[in-house]
This record gives sequence, C-alpha cells and structure tokens, in this order.
Amino acid sequence: MRLEILPVPGIGDVTEGDDLAALIATAAPWLRDGDVLVVTSKVVSKAEGRLVDVPADGPERLAARDEVLAGETARVVATRGTTRIVQTHHGFVMASAGIDASNVDKTRLVLLPKDPDASARALRATLRERYDLDVAVIVSDTMGRPWRNGLTDVALGVAGMPAIRDHRGEIDPYGNELQLTQMAVVDELAAAGELIKGKCDQVPVAVIRGYLGETRDDDEGAAALVRDASLDLFSLGTAEARAAGLREAATLADGPGPTPADPAAVDRAIAAVAGVVAPGTVFTHVTDDEVRAGLVATVPGWPAEATGLVLGAPPAPVDAADLVRFGADLQRLRTALAAEAVPSALLPPPPGSTASAALAV
Amino acid sequence: MRLEILPVPGIGDVTEGDDLAALIATAAPWLRDGDVLVVTSKVVSKAEGRLVDVPADGPERLAARDEVLAGETARVVATRGTTRIVQTHHGFVMASAGIDASNVDKTRLVLLPKDPDASARALRATLRERYDLDVAVIVSDTMGRPWRNGLTDVALGVAGMPAIRDHRGEIDPYGNELQLTQMAVVDELAAAGELIKGKCDQVPVAVIRGYLGETRDDDEGAAALVRDASLDLFSLGTAEARAAGLREAATLADGPGPTPADPAAVDRAIAAVAGVVAPGTVFTHVTDDEVRAGLVATVPGWPAEATGLVLGAPPAPVDAADLVRFGADLQRLRTALAAEAVPSALLPPPPGSTASAALAV
Repeated sequence: MRLEILPVPGIGDVTEGDDLAALIATAAPWLRDGDVLVVTSKVVSKAEGRLVDVPADGPERLAARDEVLAGETARVVATRGTTRIVQTHHGFVMASAGIDASNVDKTRLVLLPKDPDASARALRATLRERYDLDVAVIVSDTMGRPWRNGLTDVALGVAGMPAIRDHRGEIDPYGNELQLTQMAVVDELAAAGELIKGKCDQVPVAVIRGYLGETRDDDEGAAALVRDASLDLFSLGTAEARAAGLREAATLADGPGPTPADPAAVDRAIAAVAGVVAPGTVFTHVTDDEVRAGLVATVPGWPAEATGLVLGAPPAPVDAADLVRFGADLQRLRTALAAEAVPSALLPPPPGSTASAALAV
Repeated sequence: MRLEILPVPGIGDVTEGDDLAALIATAAPWLRDGDVLVVTSKVVSKAEGRLVDVPADGPERLAARDEVLAGETARVVATRGTTRIVQTHHGFVMASAGIDASNVDKTRLVLLPKDPDASARALRATLRERYDLDVAVIVSDTMGRPWRNGLTDVALGVAGMPAIRDHRGEIDPYGNELQLTQMAVVDELAAAGELIKGKCDQVPVAVIRGYLGETRDDDEGAAALVRDASLDLFSLGTAEARAAGLREAATLADGPGPTPADPAAVDRAIAAVAGVVAPGTVFTHVTDDEVRAGLVATVPGWPAEATGLVLGAPPAPVDAADLVRFGADLQRLRTALAAEAVPSALLPPPPGSTASAALAV
C-alpha cells in the first residue's frame, strides 16, 4: 500500500462563473475513481463569485474590510491589536473570518465559500455526471491554531467520504480499548495536499491517490469537524474570558445556590480576600454543624434556617467610611465565592446583631 | 513532481533499549536519501524506556496516573470533568500531557520522549553514520485542538529539515506581498504520515518521498512550533480565564492608573453596573473639562488635582446597611472599570462632602 500526492498544474487563473469541474478534468485527464481531490477554497470562492470590491488602499480600504469582516462574523472569539479571530457563520474559528487579500486584485477581497460542503458536493456530482469520475472532494484552506506556531491546511468542506475516521471501540494488541481516536482524516488529507500545492507555484488542486478504496456519500460533510462553542474549552480568548469574569463580578446577581455550599470552597474564598480586606475585618462561615451546636445564637435576629451564612464585621469603632469599605470588602468576598462557583446573597444585618452583614451562600 | 507516502511494516513490537535505527533500516532497506521518516513518538518513547509502571486498575491506577501526569505538567491549561489539558515541560499543550495507555501493557504508561528533537537528531545521525542514509526524521504524535472535532498527527520533534516553511515576503502574481504564510510543514508531513499509519495495523513509521530535495540541519527543531504562552491568545481555558477574572476582581489592588482614564471606558463601566446598584445610587465621572468649569466645587474637601474622580452617593436617607450596600456597589463599579482596563482607587469622602465616596481613576 502506498499513497501518492499529485499536483494538478495548468488550471491557471480562476474567475467568477468559471466551470471548476471542466478546468480540473481538462488539466488532469489522468484522474481516477477513488482519488481524493484537495481543492484550495480560494478557487472555489472565485468561481462562485465570493468576491467583494474594496478600495485598493488607505483608511477607506480598512473601513471597507472591517465591514466585510463584520458581515462574515457570527461572534468574535479573540482580538489583539489588529488581529480578529472570529467564528464564521459556518462555525469555523479563523483569523479575519478567512477573508483573503492574496492571490487576487488589490481591489477585491475573497470570502470563504458560502457552504463549502455544498461546493464539494457540487464539484463531486459534476465530475461524476459529466466526466464519469467517482472522486472525493475536499475544499481546503489555511488556518492558524492556538499553542503552535505556523499554519496548516484543513478541510472546510468534503464530499464523497466521511470527515472523521473513528477508531473508538477498536482493541489494541494489548487488549486496551482505544478511546480518543476519532481522526480528522480530511484535515490530514488537506494538509498532505498543501505539501505539494505549497511547493509548486499556482497549483490550487492536489490529488491524493490510494487513500480511498471507494467513495462514500456522507451527509455530515466537514461540518462534523465544527465543535460547538458550548462544548469547547477554548471558546473565548483568554483576555476576553478574563474580562468576562470581571464583568460578571461587577454585575453578580443576588441569590444563594442550593445549600449547603462546599465548606472548603467557602474557606478558600475567605482566604483569598484575607490579605486585601480592611485590617480587623472578620468573615466567619457558619456551617450546619455550628448551627446544630447552637453557635448562631451569637447572631440574634437572623432566621433559624440561615445556615451557610458568612458573617462579617468591620473593625470597631465604625464610622460611615468604614461601612463603605466594609461593603466593598463584602463584595470582594462575593466575587471570590463566585470564582469558587459559590453563589451568594447579601443580607442586611438584623437589629442587635454583632455582625454587620451576612452573605447567604 | 509527486510525493509518495509509504508504510514501513514489519517493525513489530518495540521495547526498552531497542535499536530503532536498526529496526527501521532492516524493515525498509528501500529507504533513500532525502526521504522524510515520520516515526510515531510511542516507539521512540518505548525504545528510550519512557515507561512508568502503574497498577492495572482500580483507584490505585488513577492515583498513580495523576501522579505521573503531575510530573509531566509544567502548567494546567484547562480542565473539565476528568479531562486535563496541560502544557508539558517541552511546551506542548496536550490532553493528559500526551501520556498514553494504548498499545502498551495494562500495567504501564508511555510518556512522551524527554526531548523529541534530540530523539529525531539521534535517529537521523545513526541512520547516516551506520547505514549511509541521509534522511529527515519527524517524531509525531496525535493531538486534539480547540474548535475542531477529531484529532490529527503533528510533529513533536524533527531533524534534517526546518519545521516551518516561510513564504513571508514572497509576492503573489497580483503583486500582493504574502503575509501570514509561515507553514508548519512538519505538522503537515506528520499528518500525511498518519494517513498511511492509521490505515495499516501496527505501522509506527511512514516515509514521505519526494518532498525534500536534500536534508538540512536546523538547530531549532520542532521547538520552533511551540508558541510561548505569553504570546498566545488562548493560553488558558475559557472557564479558567473567567475564574481568574473573578479572582482578580476579588483582590483588585488599589491605585489609579496614569490619568486621565478614557472617559468612554469609564462611562461604559458606569453603565454596566447601572442596573444592579441600589436604586437611587448615582455615579458621576468628573472629567478635566468639568474641573475647569468649576463643577468640582460642589465636592468641597477633595484635592483640586482630583480630576478623573468617579463620585458616588447612596440614596438618602442613609443608614448603616445603606452604606454597606453602597460600598458593595462601589466595588462593583471598580470591577467594571477593571474589565475596561481602568485601574481605580477608593478614596474616603472628605468632611462636608455631598458625595459619600470617590474612586480615583
């Protein structure tokens, strides 16, 4: 068994309305059933007319570009300086939504294909119907990634094969069941195709021969590779998520969670603010056990069911500025509790209480 | 031009102390100068004895595994449930630090090679010296990634070629200078190698033929692919970064930044907390212009240079509980300012002031 990666030279410049199937079939009369065609998304976009006119330079160009980017953006994932990493309407997370200004006139931008899976299916169907060629088609693009320098090509769309090869449930020779082995083979095929496209000038199509026994239509396409943001541990940039945490702290809603809160988490929160609150301020967590032992009797006026309280007292003597500072310190503690996933609510002190305030946690 | 991807079958089981160069040269007498060998890191690890004995099952196994993982971890990047994504001492960000329990006895875990670049260099050097073969060597492993389902193989180590192919500065046919085109070709070669290794059983080595003209020693190795966490927009998991923001809010240090703060950012912060502070609470940003217009004269007692103040007053009449709540609201505002990157300091109200407190921003 061996695989071959073959370039398809001679396709030349692709423009709106070009018949990509005809261009490929003419340039590569040697194509065979079972070949995997890796097609650079840019030629698909150009053929499909996914081009936008923009000024060639100046602030007008930047403004026009920003507007185009906003249109391609479903949500902003991370920004730094002029870098905008966004999730596109397809679900891809890419710098500048994959909008490209290279290999095109200075007055045009190339957008990603509207539906790369549909583009792949259409190209595969045309090659089959018109040229009797049964091939798989991958629409590829270049992407950056977190944690690793350098870019690689990945699949935006695919037809004629599943995006993922699933080894789960297979047993290795040592009797261990393989777990984390859903391989994104279409991304690996796109990367393999780039190896030869990158070495040749102006080669938008590569062919991988020997990988597929036969093609197979798969409804999911490369959309199967898009991980839902709610399942992703890195759905936001670090700075954006940190700012979200700060904003969350600023607008922290009142309301304790289902009691009792984890006492260790409450203790960690109290410890976290110990060094920043006004000297002499005391926070005490009243646990169920202490309630049962009658210790809350030292806090007359609070309801008997008020277990899971954090009682706080500012250092005496107390004037107005001390109470303001104490309130700020209570809010610090609420925030530290939130960082430990412990919701809390601010209660006013009951008349005659030795505590100045309490948080219900 | 064409590339070939060839499997090297027949290497069999690799154990500690095995001579990997001899195993490969014997199994693939057809190797040629300029070939790129993609070697699964697991056989490198096994040959180098990077194995740890652990109990076959039960809580003892989990505890031993946790201990091994801690030893391989430079920092924790993200956790969810039992998933631990960490940065290894090499700098790679991987689930479970790349520790693998598949294709090995149930009583052993396989760690990543200690220095995969050194492993690649050593294998390349031995093949050259002993077998007169001038090949490049990539040590590969399987990794997950944010945003996209499925895994791909990438390079942990390389010798005999640079990790990155740099197109920067090249001019496309339309006269545009190529910008973002540092391709991580060794990752693409590793991915290409996986295509044939994954299709064959027990094939730990693939050969890519036709890619390299000639080998070239490069001092950087695959370490060039490791992005420093300080430069990475995704250095922490979203939940971890959000919690870091909350912890930061809890321990917010006093101290205004270089004045004047961006008035729009201050206004955004005031607007962010408007809905959650006690009804009737008023926050007013005192700008330079207002100081010049004499408006701060309504706040007697504050130093004349106190521009960039946010003045706050709780709703009258004011009792102790109101002042505590007002302090909490001030801290909310400080946190909202921090989310806008505006540092602040809490000032006590001067005697006779109509405001109850002020933040210096």
